[in-house]
Amino acid sequence: MPLHRIWYSPGAFSEQDKAALAENITKLYTSFGLPAFYVVVLYLPVEEKNYFVGGKKESKFVRISVQHIARHFPSNKTADQFLDKYENVLAPFIKERGLDWEISTVAEKEWVRLDKAVPYDEKDNVIG
Amino acid sequence: MPLHRIWYSPGAFSEQDKAALAENITKLYTSFGLPAFYVVVLYLPVEEKNYFVGGKKESKFVRISVQHIARHFPSNKTADQFLDKYENVLAPFIKERGLDWEISTVAEKEWVRLDKAVPYDEKDNVIG
Amino acid sequence: MPLHRIWYSPGAFSEQDKAALAENITKLYTSFGLPAFYVVVLYLPVEEKNYFVGGKKESKFVRISVQHIARHFPSNKTADQFLDKYENVLAPFIKERGLDWEISTVAEKEWVRLDKAVPYDEKDNVIG
Repeated sequence: MPLHRIWYSPGAFSEQDKAALAENITKLYTSFGLPAFYVVVLYLPVEEKNYFVGGKKESKFVRISVQHIARHFPSNKTADQFLDKYENVLAPFIKERGLDWEISTVAEKEWVRLDKAVPYDEKDNVIG
Repeated sequence: MPLHRIWYSPGAFSEQDKAALAENITKLYTSFGLPAFYVVVLYLPVEEKNYFVGGKKESKFVRISVQHIARHFPSNKTADQFLDKYENVLAPFIKERGLDWEISTVAEKEWVRLDKAVPYDEKDNVIG
Repeated sequence: MPLHRIWYSPGAFSEQDKAALAENITKLYTSFGLPAFYVVVLYLPVEEKNYFVGGKKESKFVRISVQHIARHFPSNKTADQFLDKYENVLAPFIKERGLDWEISTVAEKEWVRLDKAVPYDEKDNVIG
């Protein structure tokens, strides 16, 4: 149920990059015990003529929205820890190539339907 | 004001499918008394090379985000009832064709501006 | 950190329009004291065959989502004032050309990471 949307400039990532990054993002969640099939990563190409940062056209910026649908971060510390790990996953593909980035993360309880078994925790919250 | 974003693989839907599904989604709202022109459905094609589920490329998955902007679901039961009806509307286009899907629904009070008359309920909440 | 996503029909805006509107949106924020580089504007073209309003294909509608990530509007009045100014910025590009539009604005506290210095206010909230 985590949904990652990555708005990038065409050319910033190769096909190999995209596959490797999606795999590494997914591994971050399976390391927390989440089933892999819950993790959706969408690469959304935005041409330079449509990508503005600070009012100027931009081709080296990556904007990422991470939506955690069924589970809140229990504390700011947990959110920080997640973002530290997430930025480590991203670094070889973004930071270490001189790209700029911004990540925003929402973790809110939404109503969700998935055509797969959905696990619940002891408090009857959907996990994911 | 409901905004439906449908991230799909090119080829998963025909043009007739998209028109029929958008019409059926819209009818779901008009059956609740909402004016048809409030309902926005955007089909957002994502090529297989950009669509990852579980860390693998995917061409048979449909991810849907439903945003109800001005009105909360009054209860979990109401949300469930809505999602039951919504999944029935989707089924002929998605489930019955062997596609997988995930729907997430937010229903939060946002600030909204529309260049049309906006109806208010007895408590001065925007309806939609 | 404000993220503006503009779903428009190809052809509704020229390249000059997009640059000028992004610049004007950015100026709205710098007039409030926000650094320009915080403001991200993404133009997301949606072909008429994928753009449905009221269940019908549409090529004259502009749907805008404004996400203010780190700062709530302190009151409905503040939100209204912001939206008044924002609609004034949009008007020459949208209203005065006979396009229809809808804007929704969320202003919620998300967790955010940016690879630039992030300013904090006196209450230790991220500004933006």
